[in-house]
Amino acid sequence: MISEKMKELTAGSSLIRAMFEEGKKMAAIYGRENVFDFSLGNPSVEPPEEVKEAVIKILNETSPQELHGYPNNSGFEDVRLHLAKQCNKKHGTSYDENNYVLVTGAAAALNIIFKTLLNPGDEVIAFAPYFGEYNNYTSNHGGKIVAVSPDITTFQPNMEEFKAKITPKTKAVIINTPNNPTGVIYSAETLAKMAEILNEKQSEYGTSIYLVSDEPYRELVFGNTEIPFVPDFYDNTFIAYSYSKSLSLPGERIGYVCINTKADDFEQITGALNVANRILGFVNAPTIWQKALLYISDLSVDIGVYEKNRNKVYSMLTELGYEMVEPTGAFYVFPKSLIPDDKAFCNAAKDYNILIVPGSSFGCPGHFRLAYCVDYDTIANSYEGFKKLKERFS
Amino acid sequence: MISEKMKELTAGSSLIRAMFEEGKKMAAIYGRENVFDFSLGNPSVEPPEEVKEAVIKILNETSPQELHGYPNNSGFEDVRLHLAKQCNKKHGTSYDENNYVLVTGAAAALNIIFKTLLNPGDEVIAFAPYFGEYNNYTSNHGGKIVAVSPDITTFQPNMEEFKAKITPKTKAVIINTPNNPTGVIYSAETLAKMAEILNEKQSEYGTSIYLVSDEPYRELVFGNTEIPFVPDFYDNTFIAYSYSKSLSLPGERIGYVCINTKADDFEQITGALNVANRILGFVNAPTIWQKALLYISDLSVDIGVYEKNRNKVYSMLTELGYEMVEPTGAFYVFPKSLIPDDKAFCNAAKDYNILIVPGSSFGCPGHFRLAYCVDYDTIANSYEGFKKLKERFS
Repeated sequence: MISEKMKELTAGSSLIRAMFEEGKKMAAIYGRENVFDFSLGNPSVEPPEEVKEAVIKILNETSPQELHGYPNNSGFEDVRLHLAKQCNKKHGTSYDENNYVLVTGAAAALNIIFKTLLNPGDEVIAFAPYFGEYNNYTSNHGGKIVAVSPDITTFQPNMEEFKAKITPKTKAVIINTPNNPTGVIYSAETLAKMAEILNEKQSEYGTSIYLVSDEPYRELVFGNTEIPFVPDFYDNTFIAYSYSKSLSLPGERIGYVCINTKADDFEQITGALNVANRILGFVNAPTIWQKALLYISDLSVDIGVYEKNRNKVYSMLTELGYEMVEPTGAFYVFPKSLIPDDKAFCNAAKDYNILIVPGSSFGCPGHFRLAYCVDYDTIANSYEGFKKLKERFS
Repeated sequence: MISEKMKELTAGSSLIRAMFEEGKKMAAIYGRENVFDFSLGNPSVEPPEEVKEAVIKILNETSPQELHGYPNNSGFEDVRLHLAKQCNKKHGTSYDENNYVLVTGAAAALNIIFKTLLNPGDEVIAFAPYFGEYNNYTSNHGGKIVAVSPDITTFQPNMEEFKAKITPKTKAVIINTPNNPTGVIYSAETLAKMAEILNEKQSEYGTSIYLVSDEPYRELVFGNTEIPFVPDFYDNTFIAYSYSKSLSLPGERIGYVCINTKADDFEQITGALNVANRILGFVNAPTIWQKALLYISDLSVDIGVYEKNRNKVYSMLTELGYEMVEPTGAFYVFPKSLIPDDKAFCNAAKDYNILIVPGSSFGCPGHFRLAYCVDYDTIANSYEGFKKLKERFS
């Protein structure tokens, strides 16, 4: 008796759940250390010690009614102002509490943004490969994803196709940099070009097209790579942020929406985001984590751990003859599968106790995603498996 | 550039926000102690001390990756099993972890349930007066509320009209007992009669009709009043629960969906609830609060404080000549407004620094809601205002 749509969605999602269950079964049979589960983006680095200290301090020093009571749906004003000041210092903006809505993670952020923007039939452009949940986050609110096909040599967006796919129904464009699943970061040139195209199309159609920058991996950047600040390039920008990865708190659901002051209809949008947070049933982000941000919002986990893993995965797979774009951020790598059928390839990998996700789950077949947010030894010990896999398909 | 629907919703919700802002302005002018703000259902009793102790214990004793990492979308299994055992002990059920999905509060619970159940155009029956957000929680997922008009002499549901309004498109019925805004509790007789009608209609139409029991006020019951356990009466029952009121934690967003084992398509539904939690962007309930439930889920705030307030409000207003059904639970009372136009009446109340909400916000004009989750003195000191209001309209 569930809805037709949920029947589809439940059937579709059971594939990933099946993989998760399979991993658990494999671990029971072969031992956990002999299963190489690269399927999940669950942070493997501990949160900074200050996280625990901050929560205990808040519990001890704040009146329970203030701490646990209903805040404004957009979140505590002092916390929002704190985040604005931090942004102003870092990026030279002049934001205040009105630019921020605190939310239960980036998934909530995107749902609230799309609820605010989308009329039935509106289009949201995404660049393949992209996080499959974007399809749900748009269709939840009557919109649909229009995918731009990947440039598999760089995984930077295909600008010609992007331009061609913008229509009068394009209400938003979603980008995710550092990217899940490729680990690629969009360069300043890429963002400047994208903004140029968007401004041109806005003038041509007389519409507002919002750029939604999904940035849960923003702090996970390696070496000297610069991560550009998207509102510097384009006025109609939303940032969807989560502390899930930067602080290793994915279970706690804390993040924010930041809307650029220069965005069209800024005031109307901030009012609508507040209402959307409420009516979608989020109501507000968990207040203990809102208050914790006053102490921990500019901290980060030890990124060096992920960088070491990235180096190991990249050198190991390259040595074995796998082809991929070198990732510069996040904790994923997205190599070509050794046969065109990426699902069959990922199934074959299970024969060597390796769990990886087919690229077709991200709208980019012929590849696989490997999440290296695991112990270093899991990567090192998967060498033999990847070697045999390569031999099998050579 | 926001969506047409959000324009409406933002405009509509600005009325309540305006009242909130007005309260703040009034407090600045007249002093906080001279403003009688009965507009918000924000718990006024402190959480039990054990809440703080539990969270600190968990932070000190759990590995951060286990505590803050991604759980199953339905929540930690040990916590769900804990809740099941508690229910089994109290109500003689045989529930286990599969009966429970942990969610970010009752608002999330209802959205997840309706996402799971509703096809476009499906109907959800609600009994006026009802919480206005139900309209959004259904329309978010393509459904619509069909309201049964109130029996203003008892605020028990109008069974004849209920029966007449059930159609083949009726997918769910939502009840809220103890009730917001009336404070009334549905009796065992009411629930038995409701179940009889629903079973009859299910047979007649060959459909499944789910009863959704929204129970955030379940623990807030006064005197010897019994609060019946809904699944005892009807198989196709969902419970949407929140710890917002029982533990005074509304800002933290923690609650659950409980689905009766005997419900039609139980397994399909539990799978779909898990997926709905994810794709709507909730992902999972905040993990620190999930774990806290192991220690605090059977505790409660001091209900005596609300009962004392209830007694004071009821006797005071009755003495002044206001008419109302005596509330036996929650922290609301829902008297008749002294003129038919309840909005004009609530506006007039502001002349005496009294903030109350018009019944028409709950689909029941001619009444007003007074939330007595405030300091006792606020109630006592509002006497003169309510007296003048009565004199003005006599």
